[in-house]
Amino acid sequence: MNQYEYPSKILEQAVLEIAKLPSIGKKTALRLALHILKQDVEYAQKLSDAIIHLKQSIQFCRECHTISDTELCDICANPKRDTSVVCVVESIKDVFVIEQTHQFKGVYHVLGGVISPIDGVSPQDLTIESLLERITTHAMKEIIFALPVTIEGDTTCFYIYKKIQDKPIVVTMLARGVAVGNELEYTDEATLARSIKDRVAYSGSK
Amino acid sequence: MNQYEYPSKILEQAVLEIAKLPSIGKKTALRLALHILKQDVEYAQKLSDAIIHLKQSIQFCRECHTISDTELCDICANPKRDTSVVCVVESIKDVFVIEQTHQFKGVYHVLGGVISPIDGVSPQDLTIESLLERITTHAMKEIIFALPVTIEGDTTCFYIYKKIQDKPIVVTMLARGVAVGNELEYTDEATLARSIKDRVAYSGSK
Repeated sequence: MNQYEYPSKILEQAVLEIAKLPSIGKKTALRLALHILKQDVEYAQKLSDAIIHLKQSIQFCRECHTISDTELCDICANPKRDTSVVCVVESIKDVFVIEQTHQFKGVYHVLGGVISPIDGVSPQDLTIESLLERITTHAMKEIIFALPVTIEGDTTCFYIYKKIQDKPIVVTMLARGVAVGNELEYTDEATLARSIKDRVAYSGSK
Repeated sequence: MNQYEYPSKILEQAVLEIAKLPSIGKKTALRLALHILKQDVEYAQKLSDAIIHLKQSIQFCRECHTISDTELCDICANPKRDTSVVCVVESIKDVFVIEQTHQFKGVYHVLGGVISPIDGVSPQDLTIESLLERITTHAMKEIIFALPVTIEGDTTCFYIYKKIQDKPIVVTMLARGVAVGNELEYTDEATLARSIKDRVAYSGSK
């Protein structure tokens, strides 16, 4: 790196920290830092406070392990949600995405990752024990796997399945197939193959 | 916005503040916030400190108005730089870009913008007075305009030019033309026209 690249150590420090964020390179980080410099000091203060507050004050729901400001998250605490159906997801982001479809009325369980020996993630690093406990205490009827279609995701599904196969619970997984609105020619082979294998009865309506 | 979209007010606050940064939408802001949540608390602390430190502690060079940790920036303080040649730029970013070419051995003057009646930027909002003072006190020989080729940029050049035209100083501007390595067919007409008008003697070497 050119000695001059940053005329100020303070600026350099800010650029280096901002550039640690995912998909933000040094050029973007510099642009963001210069933008912050242009704003009122209140903006820098608010942004700075929001970041540290986020890490220091946020809680995780004691039931489903998603982000929450309270001990029990809004979904788990909502009496209208069906607590007998649990959707198992990898991360908090997946909860956001599924909630935005407005199709799911059950509750979630955030594993906090998937089993991956290569990355050193073992079942003990995830919230699997807590899931098994919930299934028993809440007398759950259905568990829906919404994990990534990868070796790690499949391994995690199978691991959990082996632990619950003797319990009286229906185990399902998300349908995989051609995306709604997508042309067949732009669909990858694996997805197309899966959508043929898992074809469903044509009901005549959309 | 969906009531559920943010399960936590703390998260929402962080997303809203991060999304105020340029070219960062709410989806990206959420991704960044969740990334910060996954890291150690030290990272959030360092990022938060760097942002507020940036705004609170940074100084601007008393000569050229670029960012600096000291009263006089590294460029203005460098005895190897030719203080009789000043390159006038719109913003601090331009200093970075020109420095990276390693072609310029003079000093800079950051205007902090260009004259723009529409945006309410008048000559008094810029560091033009300070530039005129520098030209006189340092007995400058050449002023190079490196401002954007826009009505505002041209207006600013002309405004400064009128103020210094009686002084014994050479006034130049950056050459505009076909970018190095660019094909003619992909060059816009205005640039091509400019590069024909400003054609230079062929020296036989690259």
